[in-house]
Amino acid sequence: MRVLVPFDATDPKSRLAPVLDSHERQAFSQAMLADVVETLRATERDLTIRVVATDELSREPAAAVEVDDRPLSPAIDARLDPTATEPVAVVMADLALATPAALTRLFDSPAPLVFVPGLGGGTNAILARHGGLEVDYHGLSIADHRRGAERVGLRWSELDSFRLAMDIDEPDDLLEVLIHTDGRARTWLDRAGFGIDVSAAGPALSRDR
Amino acid sequence: MRVLVPFDATDPKSRLAPVLDSHERQAFSQAMLADVVETLRATERDLTIRVVATDELSREPAAAVEVDDRPLSPAIDARLDPTATEPVAVVMADLALATPAALTRLFDSPAPLVFVPGLGGGTNAILARHGGLEVDYHGLSIADHRRGAERVGLRWSELDSFRLAMDIDEPDDLLEVLIHTDGRARTWLDRAGFGIDVSAAGPALSRDR
Repeated sequence: MRVLVPFDATDPKSRLAPVLDSHERQAFSQAMLADVVETLRATERDLTIRVVATDELSREPAAAVEVDDRPLSPAIDARLDPTATEPVAVVMADLALATPAALTRLFDSPAPLVFVPGLGGGTNAILARHGGLEVDYHGLSIADHRRGAERVGLRWSELDSFRLAMDIDEPDDLLEVLIHTDGRARTWLDRAGFGIDVSAAGPALSRDR
Repeated sequence: MRVLVPFDATDPKSRLAPVLDSHERQAFSQAMLADVVETLRATERDLTIRVVATDELSREPAAAVEVDDRPLSPAIDARLDPTATEPVAVVMADLALATPAALTRLFDSPAPLVFVPGLGGGTNAILARHGGLEVDYHGLSIADHRRGAERVGLRWSELDSFRLAMDIDEPDDLLEVLIHTDGRARTWLDRAGFGIDVSAAGPALSRDR
């Protein structure tokens, strides 16, 4: 199976700007990408992984990189053959909580078209066993993908996974990395001094440096 | 299986106060409770459902109610027999995205002790096949539950479900109800004028009244 992993190498994780400067966001987002690639490999499925990046990466991930400076949706659509009969998956690069078990559930799903909703209306992963879907990552993408599939007569289902629903976009999302993971992204946050303050009403992100 | 559904009838969903007044929070939280009870029944497992409420409810849910005005953790612990050999589950009342499929995955899990993590470090559901666990819903409860299980020598696992991880606490969480559900809570939000504004950078909650 071919797996596309889109990566914004230009201004990654801009919504983390309140807590990470631009160099930090580059380093942290590439740590998440490395986690995702490693987790994909750990599924032990026969995968051809392609990182689709908007620019060259400062650290090479353990997968081939294709540079494409178009916006996300056209860059992915250009790689989806409408007449394909081979399955292809699109997996976001910021799924720091992904586990081999969660991705295996996706890859082993028998449905012809599977969407993995992300928090806030996103579409964090797609598995398409046949061609025909056009992606639309703008706005409320999960609703757009449901409608797009119905428009071209593709039956779709959704995979229910917290670990794949949790993309890391905002400062509070870093808490989930600290609570649930021990990969490179977690190590990066630990070294950068991030922790969890449990003295407040609810758990809150803290930084010690 | 016995299923406990704790419900704060005193000041429900206080973090929704920025968008709902106290009467609305009572009505909306009871709509979510009704959805959770109905979804539990739709699993077609043999369940004895008990709503553990801090006070009388203005609308009777379709399950027996036990009023207990203690804080959440002691109220639940009082109902967990340390020497029990029958399974018991604790399922939060604000899991508006819960589906029969997600709850069936929980009830059919063979593990002796299963935690379902919630967004922000909570524990949204627990399945305990034997006695011995004390619950601790304060603070970073998922981490406390992991440690508590290890302290008493209980093997635990976690169930990976977005639909059970998504408890409805904050205004932005209402978006997830609008995107992913069609039960009583969704109907209540529709009638109260809530919608999704997709004209902004990301999907945002709107209200028309």
